[in-house]
Amino acid sequence: MQLSEARVAIVGLGLMGGSLAAALRAHDACREVVGVARRESSLSTAITLRMIHRGTSDLRAGVAEADLVILCTPVGDILAKLAQMGSWLKPGCVVLDVGSTKTAICQAMEHLPEGVQPVGGHPMCGKESSGLSMAEPTLYRDRVFVLAPLERTAPVAVELAEALVRAVGARPLYLEPERHDRIVAAISHLPYLLAVTLVNAAERLDRQDTEREDTMLWALAASGFSDTSRVAASSIPMMADILRTNRGPILDAARAAQAELARMIDLLEDDDIDALLPLLGAARDRRRGMNR
Amino acid sequence: MQLSEARVAIVGLGLMGGSLAAALRAHDACREVVGVARRESSLSTAITLRMIHRGTSDLRAGVAEADLVILCTPVGDILAKLAQMGSWLKPGCVVLDVGSTKTAICQAMEHLPEGVQPVGGHPMCGKESSGLSMAEPTLYRDRVFVLAPLERTAPVAVELAEALVRAVGARPLYLEPERHDRIVAAISHLPYLLAVTLVNAAERLDRQDTEREDTMLWALAASGFSDTSRVAASSIPMMADILRTNRGPILDAARAAQAELARMIDLLEDDDIDALLPLLGAARDRRRGMNR
Repeated sequence: MQLSEARVAIVGLGLMGGSLAAALRAHDACREVVGVARRESSLSTAITLRMIHRGTSDLRAGVAEADLVILCTPVGDILAKLAQMGSWLKPGCVVLDVGSTKTAICQAMEHLPEGVQPVGGHPMCGKESSGLSMAEPTLYRDRVFVLAPLERTAPVAVELAEALVRAVGARPLYLEPERHDRIVAAISHLPYLLAVTLVNAAERLDRQDTEREDTMLWALAASGFSDTSRVAASSIPMMADILRTNRGPILDAARAAQAELARMIDLLEDDDIDALLPLLGAARDRRRGMNR
Repeated sequence: MQLSEARVAIVGLGLMGGSLAAALRAHDACREVVGVARRESSLSTAITLRMIHRGTSDLRAGVAEADLVILCTPVGDILAKLAQMGSWLKPGCVVLDVGSTKTAICQAMEHLPEGVQPVGGHPMCGKESSGLSMAEPTLYRDRVFVLAPLERTAPVAVELAEALVRAVGARPLYLEPERHDRIVAAISHLPYLLAVTLVNAAERLDRQDTEREDTMLWALAASGFSDTSRVAASSIPMMADILRTNRGPILDAARAAQAELARMIDLLEDDDIDALLPLLGAARDRRRGMNR
């Protein structure tokens, strides 16, 4: 099936789902975009903003006629919906998701009925802000969109998923779920834990510095602190699902960070700044190489 | 003395010095801005861009006639110049600096000749990029500019320093050097160490994940990684000076971070995500309260 002929159901109209719907409609990429959301207000907003053609708060009704279902809710909710909706899908329906972790979701996708075609997905374009009001059709443009088809998935289904990825301006990248989860533990979940570490350590130091609660430390925090701590503002339910479904790789990443931090603390304790410089230089070179 | 009558010598024409000179000239805030820099090319650029009235690569000549000398080089160089230039300054000359740490600098300022009026300073407006080409007259606008006068410093000298701070659009904040250094260890130097930790941990995990050097992990790094690691690109000589002159408070801050990270690792090991949530929630609330 061509994407242009497909009826697409987008389940969850937050930042990711709303942006996906808006991009599909902006490019007139498919036959129909159906939104599924719990809140009537989200559905009416998405219709008003011309993100979806029509909407429903009934998951079963929303997915029954769909050729492509895209699950755009937090990971825990994706797992719940995968367990629930298998029998409601029509044969040949492609099920894609945009969840932040892939191993648990792709395992759950194995249990979908035989005729259903599952493809795990993860677009690399999160924000620390969330919600439909932050959605924009350009969110996926030029971003990597990881695809993790299952062994059972038919090539034609993978092609439809890839066509969707390209339609919203993203670049498909095929990865095994386990490798994806190890990589995002390092580049996405570890930054979150270190941002939380920074904010809570600063809070602890502020309390040591002053008997009373004091705003001095926070008033002085400049751009370096803001940048480094930004993702600590992320949604807790979203992060809790990520921690639950990617605990092993996240533990490995956190332990790697602990080892790096301990190495620097040891050299500071020895007052051996010269030995610290190569570590700082390696990080500087790597970070400058990223160039953004 | 009024700032408008003062001859101001700015020593070091990088991001901080160049921006300070540009702001003073843009507001016509003082009688003359004299630039002191090692490189002739910096001097001629600063004259062309109307940042300074005239320039010299001879520190002694540059500061001899000045009513206000502002040291805008890295901390180690500020310490060297303070040890060197005392006898070259005219009586009543106010010496201010913009160095990132204050205890070592204010201690060195104690050794300036009696008639000289020292004031430690630190504007909270760093960037990870540096150099005259990044300078802009608005760099200090609406930023906190910490001032740390010595006990010996005359009120009239403090007033001149404060007038300078206000003239470039910054907000003066008086702090003891030791307290300043504890605070910046938490809000500026710790973010740097954690950004380095993140980049080097990701590098370590990437090597574990793949036999060969692989660009997959770095290609996938999205905005969360970019933000959290941004300050790892900072200048190493600048950071080395900071680590050397603020080692104690930085060690305290790094140990506080190590304790926070260890607490989260323990809860992850116990698979007790519920107990982790209050730590994440506290960081989220604090970070969202910063609102930038």
